[in-house]
Parts: sequence; C-alpha cells; structure tokens
Amino acid sequence: MDSPVAPVWSEAAGPPDTQADVVVVGSGCAGLSAAIEAARAGLDVMVLERAGLAGGASAMSGGCVYLGGGTPLQEACGFEDTPDDMFAFVMAATGPGADEAKIDLYCRQSVEHFHWLTGCGVPFKASLYTGTFPEPLTDDGLMFTGGENGFPFNEMARPAPRGHVPIAHNKRPMGHTSGVVLMAHLAAAAEAAGARTITETAVQRLVRERDGAVTGVIVRQGGAQRHIRARRGVVLAGGGFIYNEEMLAHHAPHLLGKAKLGTDGDDGRCIRMAQAMGAETLHMEAAEAAFGLPELYLEGLLVNSLGQRFINEDTYFGRIGQAVMFRQGGRAFAIIDDAIHEGLSDIGKFYPAGWVGADAAELAQELGMTPGVLEETVAAYNRHAARGEDPLFHKAARWLRPLEPPLGAIELADRAFVSFTLGGLHTDVDARVVDVDGRPIPGLHAAGRTTSGLPGWGYCSGMSLGDGTFFGRRAGRALAGGPQE
Amino acid sequence: MDSPVAPVWSEAAGPPDTQADVVVVGSGCAGLSAAIEAARAGLDVMVLERAGLAGGASAMSGGCVYLGGGTPLQEACGFEDTPDDMFAFVMAATGPGADEAKIDLYCRQSVEHFHWLTGCGVPFKASLYTGTFPEPLTDDGLMFTGGENGFPFNEMARPAPRGHVPIAHNKRPMGHTSGVVLMAHLAAAAEAAGARTITETAVQRLVRERDGAVTGVIVRQGGAQRHIRARRGVVLAGGGFIYNEEMLAHHAPHLLGKAKLGTDGDDGRCIRMAQAMGAETLHMEAAEAAFGLPELYLEGLLVNSLGQRFINEDTYFGRIGQAVMFRQGGRAFAIIDDAIHEGLSDIGKFYPAGWVGADAAELAQELGMTPGVLEETVAAYNRHAARGEDPLFHKAARWLRPLEPPLGAIELADRAFVSFTLGGLHTDVDARVVDVDGRPIPGLHAAGRTTSGLPGWGYCSGMSLGDGTFFGRRAGRALAGGPQE
Repeated sequence: MDSPVAPVWSEAAGPPDTQADVVVVGSGCAGLSAAIEAARAGLDVMVLERAGLAGGASAMSGGCVYLGGGTPLQEACGFEDTPDDMFAFVMAATGPGADEAKIDLYCRQSVEHFHWLTGCGVPFKASLYTGTFPEPLTDDGLMFTGGENGFPFNEMARPAPRGHVPIAHNKRPMGHTSGVVLMAHLAAAAEAAGARTITETAVQRLVRERDGAVTGVIVRQGGAQRHIRARRGVVLAGGGFIYNEEMLAHHAPHLLGKAKLGTDGDDGRCIRMAQAMGAETLHMEAAEAAFGLPELYLEGLLVNSLGQRFINEDTYFGRIGQAVMFRQGGRAFAIIDDAIHEGLSDIGKFYPAGWVGADAAELAQELGMTPGVLEETVAAYNRHAARGEDPLFHKAARWLRPLEPPLGAIELADRAFVSFTLGGLHTDVDARVVDVDGRPIPGLHAAGRTTSGLPGWGYCSGMSLGDGTFFGRRAGRALAGGPQE
Repeated sequence: MDSPVAPVWSEAAGPPDTQADVVVVGSGCAGLSAAIEAARAGLDVMVLERAGLAGGASAMSGGCVYLGGGTPLQEACGFEDTPDDMFAFVMAATGPGADEAKIDLYCRQSVEHFHWLTGCGVPFKASLYTGTFPEPLTDDGLMFTGGENGFPFNEMARPAPRGHVPIAHNKRPMGHTSGVVLMAHLAAAAEAAGARTITETAVQRLVRERDGAVTGVIVRQGGAQRHIRARRGVVLAGGGFIYNEEMLAHHAPHLLGKAKLGTDGDDGRCIRMAQAMGAETLHMEAAEAAFGLPELYLEGLLVNSLGQRFINEDTYFGRIGQAVMFRQGGRAFAIIDDAIHEGLSDIGKFYPAGWVGADAAELAQELGMTPGVLEETVAAYNRHAARGEDPLFHKAARWLRPLEPPLGAIELADRAFVSFTLGGLHTDVDARVVDVDGRPIPGLHAAGRTTSGLPGWGYCSGMSLGDGTFFGRRAGRALAGGPQE
C-alpha cells in the first residue's frame, strides 16, 4: 500500500501553509456541489484535485442524474411521478440495506434539486429517449435507467423515467460527453460563487485536534508537503476504490480483474483516511456491474452456465450485471438468432456469437452444457413467446418472439462488466461522517462514491451523480451552518 | 445503540483498579486458547467474561474442530490427508476473499494443533460418523463437514473428513454437548496454567496511549466501572455480531429475522471497539447459514422458487444455506416422495411437507410456480437418476433415485437458517489487529469470530472452533514474545 493514511495531530502538523473555511477533497460532482453551496453562503472554499484537470469520474460518466417525483422534464414528457412512487421504487431497487432516511429525503427534494441543477446552467431537453442503449445517442434528456418499467418493479410503483441526461452535442456512440457538460456547468458555478479549485494536489492525511475534530489536511503539492487548515471543516469527495487492488482483494474480491469505471483517483484514500479515525463503513462488497449492451439480449434469452434463465432480459442492465457477478458465478450467455443479430447496431455486431448451433441441442453441446437444460429453456421460452407471454420472468411483450434456429451464444464475459464500488463511509443525511457509535466526527463531511450513499446493494444509472450532487450540496450547506430542511 | 465504544486515553482512565500482563476479552474457545498459551509462558493472564458462566457460543456449539493434513484421527480411520490437499480444499471452499496466509499456516500446523488440543485433554474417538446429521448423534470423532467428498470439491483435492468432534456422552439428537466437553477441557487447562477467569465483567472500552498502543480496558463489574491495565496487551475474543440488530441492518441485512447461533454476547462490541481505533474490518456481510437437516433433501431435490435446481443436494448444508440466502432470494424447497418421507428420522418428520401434489405438475400448481419448470426439473432428474447419474450437479450415485409421485415440498424457510456472522476485524497471522494501513495496532490482538478469520465468504463446520483455538493460541504466544513459526 502507499503512504500511511492515519490522521496527524494538529500540533504535529505545524502551522498551516494556507487555509480556507472549507476544504473539499476532490472536484467531481460531489465536491463541486459542496463547494458551490458553501461558497454561495459566503465561505472561503478551496477544492483540492489530485489530477491535472477537475471533474474526476463524473466528467467521464454518461452525465445521467437520477431525479424524479414530478420534475418539469418528466411532466413535459407526459409522465406522472410522485415522491412516494419514487421512494417505493428506490427502496425496492437498492435493497437490502438501503438507507431509508437518505432515500426519503432525496425523493422528497428531487424536484428542488432538478431546479438547482438547471439554475447552475445544466441544460436538459424535454424529450424521451426510447432506444436501447444505456445512454442516449441523441440529445434526448429523459430515459428509464433502473428497470422501473420492467418486472417486478412495474408492479410495485407507477413506472416513470428518472434518468435526466444533460444535452450534449457531438455525441458519438458510447460517447460520454454529457458528463463533461454537467461538470463544466458545475465548475463554472463553483468558480462564479468564488470557490478556488487547485489541481495537482493530492490529499494524504487528515489533521485532527485532541478532541477528535478534523481541522485540516496534509497534501502533496509539486513534491512538497503542505498543511492546509480548514476553519469550518473538510468534505471528502474523492470517489470510491475501484482503482485500489488491495482494497478490492480485501473487500470486493468479485471485482478483481473486471473493467473499471473511474479514474486512478478512485483509490479509496478518502475512505481510508476517515476509517483510520474510527469512521464507519458500509457495504464495502457492493458494486455496480454494468454490461452496457441490452440490445444483445433484450429480444433473446439470458441463461446461466447451466442453461437456465435467471432474470427478465428487459430489466436494468446493471441489475443483470449484479445477478451475473454475484449470484450466477460470473458467467452468462445471451442466446440469439439470426434476426436478432441482423438487427444489432454496429456496436452490437462488435460482439460476435462465440458459439453457434443448428438448434438448441447443438448449441448446448458447443457450450459444454449438460444436455437437455438449454433445449428445454429455449423450448419453453418459445412456447410462451409465441403467445406474447413470459410467465417465468414477465419480460414485456414487445421483446417477446420465438427464437428461430440456428442459434448463437454471446458470452457476457467477466471483463465486459464495467464496475465501480458502491461501499464507503457511513454518513448521515447532512453528509456528516459518523463513527461506529453513529456520532458525527466534528468537521468531517463526505459525499459521492466515497460514501455508501443512496444505493445499498442495488443501483440505477444516475444514482451516483444524483446522490453526489444532492448530498454534496447538503455537506456545503451544513458547513455554512444554515438551517436545513 | 448502547454506550459509546470509542477508546479512552490512559490519562483519562485514571489509575488502574487492577492489572495483569494479558487481558483476554471473552472466554470462548479463542479467548481460553490465548489464555492457556500466555499463562503457560509465565504471564499473568486475566480472562474477562460478560456472562455468569465461561464458554460463550463455543460451549453452545457442536464442538467440531476443522483439522486435517494427516491427523492421528484421520489416519486411524483410514484416510490419507496432506496439508496441500487441505489447503487446496479450504481455499476453494472459503473464497472469494479467502485469507491465503492464514489458511496456509493453519493447514501446515493442523496436526500440531490436534496434538495441542488432545494435550489439553480434549478426547477424540477414532471412528467415522457416516450418518446424515450435521453433528454425530454418536460418540464418533471424525466426519465430513465441508462438502469435501461432493462436487466440485472432490475434483479439486483428495477428499478427507476433517471435522474432529470431541467425545461426549449422553448425547441427544441435536444435543450440543461436544461443545461443552471441548470448553470444559480448555477451561481446565487455562486454570491449570494459572489464568484467572472473571465472570460478569463486561468490557466496554479500550484504553490507549498517545502513541496508539492499547494498554488496558474499561469494564463494568457489579454496577461499578473499573480500569484494568494490561501490561503486555489485550486479546479481543468476544464473538461476532449476530445479536446486534443495528449492525446486522448496516452490514448484513440478509440476516435480519433469521435464527441466530450465538449468545447475546455476540453483540459486535469487540469489533466496534477496535474499529473506533481505526482497525480494519473484512467481509462484514458474510455469514454462515446452516439448515441443519440434510436428510430432508439428500435423496430428493432442492429447487428454487422458480422450480429450478441450483446446487448438488449432497454438498455441505452451510453451502446450501448460503446459496439460498445470498443467491436464491431466500426461498428454496426440498422436493420429496413417500419413500424419502418414510425414511426420515423423528426429527426429520417434524418438518412436514407444506405442499403435496399427485404429480410434479400438481405440486407446481400448489406451490404457485410457473407451469412447466418443476415438471421438467423432476423429469430430467428422474431420467438421469434412473441411470445413477446427475450430469447437472454431480450428486453422488448413492443419493440418486427417481422420485415417485405423489410428491411433497418442504420449504427451507428463512427462519430455519441458523446464522452467525463471519465478518470482523482484520488480523495478521499472529492474531495482531491491523489498521487500515495494514500496520498492527500495538498491544491489540484478536481471534475467533471477532475476526474475519479463516473463512472469506465460505464456511465449513468446525472452522470457527478451529481458527478460534489456533489463532487464539498464536495471540497468546505473540504476547508472550516467544518465537513463532
């Protein structure tokens, strides 16, 4: 492991080289949102970014923000949504271990949060994306991103699309420019509010007083070590730990060797710095595991390595990825026919069928499966699909059609799952980091993937930018000392 | 939550009311093994037990100790075993996230550890238990307890029984007296070595110096608070956290509402006291989940709520429980016929079939399953079983027989899974508690279910008494300062 993360006593840290009211660690969506609110409240805010450019993993992301409860975008696209429907869905989709207090607050204040984002200049177009890509290839601003309109969630709460995607021009297939748009506006808002962002500054340790309060950070800057004092407090917003192999081996071994979504700043250091002070961590094993091409299996079948179905193919692709990674031994196959293959996009066609068979029996043999299982899976699926039904998993009728031999199988290989970590620091609804007794550590806040945030074990696209910006804001407001609802 | 667990500075703790070289927290197998080794090395050892009687969850257990690599008991029963075979099996059975260094040491020194236990007076009879109960109803001393002789492990390493069960007389069905026998001998050995065990003493906080070293504990004793100084160090051996509902909700929500195996001392306090000092924790979600009656499904079929098989019925029952709890949504059914029911023990007959059907189709209907799946599962199983084969899951031929209608289904209900937690403090091979930087916290050791120990996510019966006694011993020896191999 790298240099120690244990906190430094303030008397050992020496006099500060510089100071601010609020020191924010990380310039992703959580850090900048905290900076905007604290700076708007009149505080002197310093944002420290390890990399040479601000933006972090947020700028690399698809830019989607999970919002609902009746946002103007939802209404303009003709969808009714309420905080209660949103709450019911999010609780069901992120359990077990979902954080009810955070989810409740998030759903009730989601419309206000949408207005805050647009107030920062983030642009959204009021049109629904109806394609099957995980992110719109168009400038459409609204989409389903959590399986709300699929089984079993469509029976639990009125479905509404809640993925709010900023307008980005020059989109390419799989382009990620909406994340850049989001972050450019947040960065401009932070600057306009007076927050200073300082790049190439790696935060290494927290500085604390004898009474336990955090009052600063030790950083490396241009080869030198500096002590930066935080008069009001520190906000840890330095991302998760997908780029820390030792932490993965310890806490989330399923993720070893998987493709990573994040930056090398996602090294878990913010989590560990707080842990070293006795901060509580939650759900360190949990992860998003997204195989991003639903078109490969939406109209086909998903089977495990035995040839059994295990999920409806039209649910959220991250839910499918979690099922494969955590519950199906890491292997699954999309079973397709020629019609499906011909309908694939150019990107979809990039994933060839690794196995083909004149019929299901031959395909099962090619796959090395026990004879009989895949054959029966396909036969049962076809029998029901011919009637527009999927009694086993309730896939929507629009995706149901009997498969016609010859059949092909595409492996949803381990390496194809893009992962990031969901576990992190336990924070309260004001983004205060709490210790194992549940008591806030004075002067220490956190937001974004440094925390366990909205998801427990589950996920929906847009939740990280959603809870990062929302609880980042709450951290900034809490440090400003204003009343919070 | 109860009173704070944060450590106390030694100057705030005041002068000690009493002291010892080594203070052991908890009198289960890990604590007493640490006490024996430290006391035999000449140290003054004080064992603090919260309850009125020593023994903890170890005394309530089945007494089985997981040992191998060629113990005298294995040899006397005609089994060859080597440390390498044991290592290969344990690594496969406890992953992902298995602790390779601990497992390696444990396997290489397992024969020596057997001799140490018998040297403490623990009696083992050299006979193999061949029944299907999870613990012998006889005085047989050796049994398979981890699925070593079932698929897929029988293809990975030469199978050997490694569950070593102390002789206990007056056994009743499901009686747990071997645990009492084990603990009575360890308690006698601890006393003979000069260790003092003090009951009704609840350890509440650790005492630490400014340099981070642990030098004592604060306890409640008879309504009064006392400071006990530990000149050499403290061993945390106070069990897991299955009896702490808030910790379960935070870390292991799957276990909420499940039957618990442990004592109310398993409240996680030892884990939290160390966490509050910056100790690392591992695998806090992991759990043993044992449905203790293999006879209900060994000769039948296990299916999930869809009617699909998901595991070989002759593997370790804890592996089945983990599969149901963590990967099959918490529900599974044993499908049996009249012949199986008639062959059940009186205990097995206590679990009636909740659903019956003239054939698989009718049974599926009774169970509310999608028509077709269970029927095909039973038909395929019967077809292969008639030939003595199970190509899907490789159940051993001795348990294979076509099921004859009428059929019944027994739910392996959530409440029937007896659970305890496997997550806990990260320790090194000398049972030293390490911080998030991987550095030992001076003066702080831990063993048993307070630590993450041998299991990562997996388990075999006997592993907790195994690693509790083994790494408890290493804690005691490390505190005595002698060289350790």
